[in-house]
Amino acid sequence: MDNTDRFNIENLGAPQYRSPLKLSTVEGDQIFNFVSESNRLVFDLSMEHYNQCLTDGVQPVCLEKAGPRQDIFFDAENATAAIVTCGGLCPGINNVIRGLVMALHYFYGVKKILGVPYGYEGLNPEKGHKLTELTPDKVKDIHQFGGTFLGSSRGGQDVSVMVDTLEANQIDMLFAIGGDGTLKGVNALGKEISKRNAKISVVGIPKTIDNDIDLIDESFGFETAFDVASPILRDAHNEATGAYNGISIIKLMGRDSGFIAASAALAMPVVNFVLVPEMDFKLDGEGGFLKVLEKRLQKKKHAVIVVAEGAGQQLFKERTIVKDASGNIQHEDIGVFLKEKITEYFKDKIPVTIKYIDPSYIVRCAPANSSDSVFCSRLAYHAVHGAMAGKTKFVASRVNNNYVYVPISEVTKKRKKIDLEGEFWFSVLQSTGQPFSM
Amino acid sequence: MDNTDRFNIENLGAPQYRSPLKLSTVEGDQIFNFVSESNRLVFDLSMEHYNQCLTDGVQPVCLEKAGPRQDIFFDAENATAAIVTCGGLCPGINNVIRGLVMALHYFYGVKKILGVPYGYEGLNPEKGHKLTELTPDKVKDIHQFGGTFLGSSRGGQDVSVMVDTLEANQIDMLFAIGGDGTLKGVNALGKEISKRNAKISVVGIPKTIDNDIDLIDESFGFETAFDVASPILRDAHNEATGAYNGISIIKLMGRDSGFIAASAALAMPVVNFVLVPEMDFKLDGEGGFLKVLEKRLQKKKHAVIVVAEGAGQQLFKERTIVKDASGNIQHEDIGVFLKEKITEYFKDKIPVTIKYIDPSYIVRCAPANSSDSVFCSRLAYHAVHGAMAGKTKFVASRVNNNYVYVPISEVTKKRKKIDLEGEFWFSVLQSTGQPFSM
Amino acid sequence: MDNTDRFNIENLGAPQYRSPLKLSTVEGDQIFNFVSESNRLVFDLSMEHYNQCLTDGVQPVCLEKAGPRQDIFFDAENATAAIVTCGGLCPGINNVIRGLVMALHYFYGVKKILGVPYGYEGLNPEKGHKLTELTPDKVKDIHQFGGTFLGSSRGGQDVSVMVDTLEANQIDMLFAIGGDGTLKGVNALGKEISKRNAKISVVGIPKTIDNDIDLIDESFGFETAFDVASPILRDAHNEATGAYNGISIIKLMGRDSGFIAASAALAMPVVNFVLVPEMDFKLDGEGGFLKVLEKRLQKKKHAVIVVAEGAGQQLFKERTIVKDASGNIQHEDIGVFLKEKITEYFKDKIPVTIKYIDPSYIVRCAPANSSDSVFCSRLAYHAVHGAMAGKTKFVASRVNNNYVYVPISEVTKKRKKIDLEGEFWFSVLQSTGQPFSM
Amino acid sequence: MDNTDRFNIENLGAPQYRSPLKLSTVEGDQIFNFVSESNRLVFDLSMEHYNQCLTDGVQPVCLEKAGPRQDIFFDAENATAAIVTCGGLCPGINNVIRGLVMALHYFYGVKKILGVPYGYEGLNPEKGHKLTELTPDKVKDIHQFGGTFLGSSRGGQDVSVMVDTLEANQIDMLFAIGGDGTLKGVNALGKEISKRNAKISVVGIPKTIDNDIDLIDESFGFETAFDVASPILRDAHNEATGAYNGISIIKLMGRDSGFIAASAALAMPVVNFVLVPEMDFKLDGEGGFLKVLEKRLQKKKHAVIVVAEGAGQQLFKERTIVKDASGNIQHEDIGVFLKEKITEYFKDKIPVTIKYIDPSYIVRCAPANSSDSVFCSRLAYHAVHGAMAGKTKFVASRVNNNYVYVPISEVTKKRKKIDLEGEFWFSVLQSTGQPFSM
Repeated sequence: MDNTDRFNIENLGAPQYRSPLKLSTVEGDQIFNFVSESNRLVFDLSMEHYNQCLTDGVQPVCLEKAGPRQDIFFDAENATAAIVTCGGLCPGINNVIRGLVMALHYFYGVKKILGVPYGYEGLNPEKGHKLTELTPDKVKDIHQFGGTFLGSSRGGQDVSVMVDTLEANQIDMLFAIGGDGTLKGVNALGKEISKRNAKISVVGIPKTIDNDIDLIDESFGFETAFDVASPILRDAHNEATGAYNGISIIKLMGRDSGFIAASAALAMPVVNFVLVPEMDFKLDGEGGFLKVLEKRLQKKKHAVIVVAEGAGQQLFKERTIVKDASGNIQHEDIGVFLKEKITEYFKDKIPVTIKYIDPSYIVRCAPANSSDSVFCSRLAYHAVHGAMAGKTKFVASRVNNNYVYVPISEVTKKRKKIDLEGEFWFSVLQSTGQPFSM
Repeated sequence: MDNTDRFNIENLGAPQYRSPLKLSTVEGDQIFNFVSESNRLVFDLSMEHYNQCLTDGVQPVCLEKAGPRQDIFFDAENATAAIVTCGGLCPGINNVIRGLVMALHYFYGVKKILGVPYGYEGLNPEKGHKLTELTPDKVKDIHQFGGTFLGSSRGGQDVSVMVDTLEANQIDMLFAIGGDGTLKGVNALGKEISKRNAKISVVGIPKTIDNDIDLIDESFGFETAFDVASPILRDAHNEATGAYNGISIIKLMGRDSGFIAASAALAMPVVNFVLVPEMDFKLDGEGGFLKVLEKRLQKKKHAVIVVAEGAGQQLFKERTIVKDASGNIQHEDIGVFLKEKITEYFKDKIPVTIKYIDPSYIVRCAPANSSDSVFCSRLAYHAVHGAMAGKTKFVASRVNNNYVYVPISEVTKKRKKIDLEGEFWFSVLQSTGQPFSM
Repeated sequence: MDNTDRFNIENLGAPQYRSPLKLSTVEGDQIFNFVSESNRLVFDLSMEHYNQCLTDGVQPVCLEKAGPRQDIFFDAENATAAIVTCGGLCPGINNVIRGLVMALHYFYGVKKILGVPYGYEGLNPEKGHKLTELTPDKVKDIHQFGGTFLGSSRGGQDVSVMVDTLEANQIDMLFAIGGDGTLKGVNALGKEISKRNAKISVVGIPKTIDNDIDLIDESFGFETAFDVASPILRDAHNEATGAYNGISIIKLMGRDSGFIAASAALAMPVVNFVLVPEMDFKLDGEGGFLKVLEKRLQKKKHAVIVVAEGAGQQLFKERTIVKDASGNIQHEDIGVFLKEKITEYFKDKIPVTIKYIDPSYIVRCAPANSSDSVFCSRLAYHAVHGAMAGKTKFVASRVNNNYVYVPISEVTKKRKKIDLEGEFWFSVLQSTGQPFSM
Repeated sequence: MDNTDRFNIENLGAPQYRSPLKLSTVEGDQIFNFVSESNRLVFDLSMEHYNQCLTDGVQPVCLEKAGPRQDIFFDAENATAAIVTCGGLCPGINNVIRGLVMALHYFYGVKKILGVPYGYEGLNPEKGHKLTELTPDKVKDIHQFGGTFLGSSRGGQDVSVMVDTLEANQIDMLFAIGGDGTLKGVNALGKEISKRNAKISVVGIPKTIDNDIDLIDESFGFETAFDVASPILRDAHNEATGAYNGISIIKLMGRDSGFIAASAALAMPVVNFVLVPEMDFKLDGEGGFLKVLEKRLQKKKHAVIVVAEGAGQQLFKERTIVKDASGNIQHEDIGVFLKEKITEYFKDKIPVTIKYIDPSYIVRCAPANSSDSVFCSRLAYHAVHGAMAGKTKFVASRVNNNYVYVPISEVTKKRKKIDLEGEFWFSVLQSTGQPFSM
């Protein structure tokens, strides 16, 4: 596959209907124009890439611009859509559900929209949950609440059984809101659908509070997550300064990627140490974390430590790999571990007062803030436009500050991580004052 | 002691100075009047008590009205005041510190105000902390932050050593912000001071996030505490409804008294069970908690449980009594215990998803909300008025919605608890729908 | 009328049914006890009043304790209740509506609960609004939103027409949530009902964001009001300090009583002047407001002024009295007036930058904070208990920190105002540093 | 100028010092690398532009990547920096000030940092304000507060006088935080400095709550602005539904660009009409706004209208152009105007209740939310890196989600406006349901 094709989206077939949207195709009439299939956006902005393309005589890697197409695949009035939410909670899920329902109903006139209860379980008849009908009236206020209106569950179900359910309910479009595992599941559904030559579009809206989906700028809910976390850091700082040699340890989400921990620390600059999964650090020895912490206490009499849940796994020597229902590796509790190690280290040295704070559930259940609300609505609208056009196995997302469609297979190749040599991590180090390595 | 004397406040001696406050003693001139020592307020409002007094020919139990006295004990200009904050954090401590400094400096012209660092430790020279001078400029913004500007510590120090420090620094008034243990400490200091025939006023401002100080309407920070806790209950409810048979367990503060748990549940009516230390409940058997919970799940597919940290201690059979530095009994973790018991109970019955949330530090570190801010300022002002008048071993507080002075010995006799037969608890039961007993 | 009867509540007749509530009448069984009609609470707590009563050989003035009665007037199962909300918005209205519906439905088993749309207009068939049925399911989430679920309107309707509507719909109990005008309306309805010898209980729950209902501790929503207003004062302070000689003027609610302005200023101590309707002040001359403001600017280069909407009406010389639909006198806009006068005064003296902020709608539309939520639920429960017992023409409220019933005729005799000689106003003056008079 | 040069940044001269930052120049050592002058990023992402460049054999338009340079122009230890904040308030100003001071002091070791009080006035000695020294300790908590720590003023001062002040104080770098007018002023300063052949770097950090600076993704404070505005829309919706035919009009900032109004409406989807300066609309006639509003009321009995302050200026027939001190055209008050027109229109038709809400000061004084906090810190860091490298007359900003430097002359050529044919405005229309034109 050359550059041109890398990010192409699969389609169920040639468009068969005119879009019911009353848009324009001419510039200057102050009416939004349909987006053409040939609208592409460069992925890699660096001059180096450009010059390389020039040298190689190839097109640069491009992304499909998101938006409504003039010719669409489904007969909107008679189409059936379904929405499913999977995995852990994240701010903004309800905004996405609301946006999907509003776009399907009001923009395209889709009459039947089904809610799949409790994640992929809801597509497995054995589980006994029932699909429910969604209407604008039912969802109009749900954006004011955190959580998921539809319920969720972790882990997958048999792909064949789920496609059976889609077919049995004559579902034309499935919108799945979920993280890495969910998206891989969407792809698997898409492949099974292709095999059966069924005409069902499957679409992902990446939901990962850890912000660890590759290629895309950011996943929805992430900004809210560190917006909710950062006043908790301020409180933790108050706890730390409220005691002589007070130490606050705050564990934040971040299995493989420390974006929330790092962003919250940057947003609330009272943090002295941020420990993330991307970094290796040692506890003991001269430049080790404990020694650095001791020096900090000697100088300032308090310290605030933010640790991502997946940080420091290298410190657990005999690690039995345990996975949760979603297939994520269950981590040892680094927060509790750190608390113990710090206590032990200072026991015969100086009196310290350690507070351990785990605000995870408070963060993930919050309603979306305004930036995320806007983001969720726009993602949902674009997901609907793409599905109506017959595109499948793609996610709606934002890359380089533009809304685009990206193949699921591309965003699930690997997890996005903090680049320890990048400007973002450098900002964090500068803000906290912690050394490059410990 | 008869009714009349029960709540009388001890005094260091006859007033020797005129108050520098430019107040009035006549009604109708639109200028606040000095409060006379004879201003008393009835404590027990019930007609029964009144009629009993009538029958017995005795005066009803009365409280001293708080406020500025025209004749005061200290030479304000040359007096030295000190402020100490002890025990765990609670919203509003900084507001009280600020209010004390402002009232001492601006109302009375006290020139020297000392901050005692890290609680009673700061009065023990061996600990090596140093008293710091407090000025309006230093404290003017601290009300915007949670925690304590002065630092705190748990536990007492040698009374004699502490009085030595007070005398060595020529301190005339000590304002102590703290809970039951702290207040008992204040009383002990007062007694030692009397014994030495020193003229130092010791004043308590009751600080207990649990709201468990007896006799008084409410302690400062309590309203903020459940104001901060209640949206967390809303989030927990979202967690519970987000999973099939989702159960959220939220542990809130409340060692011996469940006021925060009960008030937060009443404020955010998504809670199905409130478990408080005052109630006895059994887990097993027909009317037991687990069976009641099961019925709830069958009907509604989710449940929200709020548990005060001191609840259900009767369930721990072999309980070794462990006390923390403040002398409080360290409780077994009822939240974790409940989570285990519920998991075990449902293991072979139905799939449940349990979330355990402990927001304690987030609650106690919050800045005071507006009601508490007003309350803290007024408490601080009254504490200063009382101390300047030479009163000692008292707390400034609000009883029956009026500001009064109460002897420390009276408010520390026992802890205030939820009256299980009272209207407040009945409101909670009605709001949650839980049975009178389990 | 002697002391004993002054606060007695009128009753529709002797109780005819047993309460369906499963409560107790014995102490010590950990079950809430029914409240007896003889449970009374002393109104005036001062020793003076008490001693005067003893001397005079009369009972002190007492209030009826609120709560469920064992014997009730209505046949709960077959009773019909109605709820109406009148006048301007105030935080907590929806909490009260929710509490009434829950208490009627779940506690007493009332099957038919009607919502009156758009205030008293909804009881006038000519207006064309229709009564709607209220159920627990419809109201279960409304406490999370400000405003009124039922809609409101200002002003009264023909009393006879309204009673016709109550009778036509076989309404047994009418709960009216409103301020002074609404409560007077409730009383008028009650009198017309008596005249017709109809058996309809009419109950008021005092709603006045100005907190100006006489006798009671506080009206619901008031704490939220100044909780919402106080961060706006902080922002206004930032505006003021952001410019050289910056002056921020914030107009807050308070037609005849300045409680919100004064409380918000006390809660957020960045305010330098609080102007309330209760005080007289002059603008010009040596001790006048403008001169005092000038001195403040000379010293500090910024000033924050909070003005209640009804303050300074004496400054408008030619005042034509205009009333709004609720019969309240429409005030001249003191905020705009002050801004003009200050601009004029400083024009040729020093450059000033004046910002005028009117956050009224933001304050009154806010959802109730936690203290108010708890308060609203308990008020609603008590209102229902009183109505079921056949009491009429009363309000449910809190006096001296206890829930009681008070005759509407007593609370509407006059408006509650800030006592300029009282401790509350003194606290405000001390906090702002403004002189006793200007 | 060809593509390559368009966005080149001017430099004071060749670098003369090694950066004191301990960074790397090799990949893979997990230490952030210095950014090279040759690091450029493509500005226009469209394939069309890219292909055109390839065809034409020219380089695409590129931007300089922001970040620390290995070789710098100033001798950091002996350099003097100054910071000035101009124009209206905006969330995040204090975060930028804090970030600048921290970066100058801790990253580069700059010893002398001066705060210019009250905007450009502070650089004019005649105004009598004095420069103040800034230290990390003075600014460490200011990010928690809205407003500007340094004070601000509107309008310019004599360029020559200001450069005199810079020279007199031996200032090497001036960081100016301000909007369009301020940035033009920075450019003018830069030109005067060039003329004098002085070596002073002048840097802009674009501050415009309206988000109307051209080319850049977004200005700081903008996300906070609509985050603060959107709950006010929710409240306004409660006001509207609280009355029969209730209409709420909310005026939001937006002189020439309606981004705040449109974004807030998209974030809080209770809005029915968004009126922005970019759109033309008529009030009267068949498809006019008033008729459309009437239809909405007939169907839904309430309406929420958000209007940007600069909208509908075409409706004011006899418009005298008035400018404020910053040179911005003073607009007629469209909010008040709309209120009058709507009142008039419905007067003899149907009863309506109109509420007019202007929350401008509440929005602009708010402290930055977490996204903006992170953004402000990173902008400030990059501004410092650029200035230390000797770059001048540039702004630090984010374009296509990357931090870059852009010449001031480019970003001040015209204002950024909502593209009425773009996807953003289309999302707004879809969300509100309002027609493409009125």
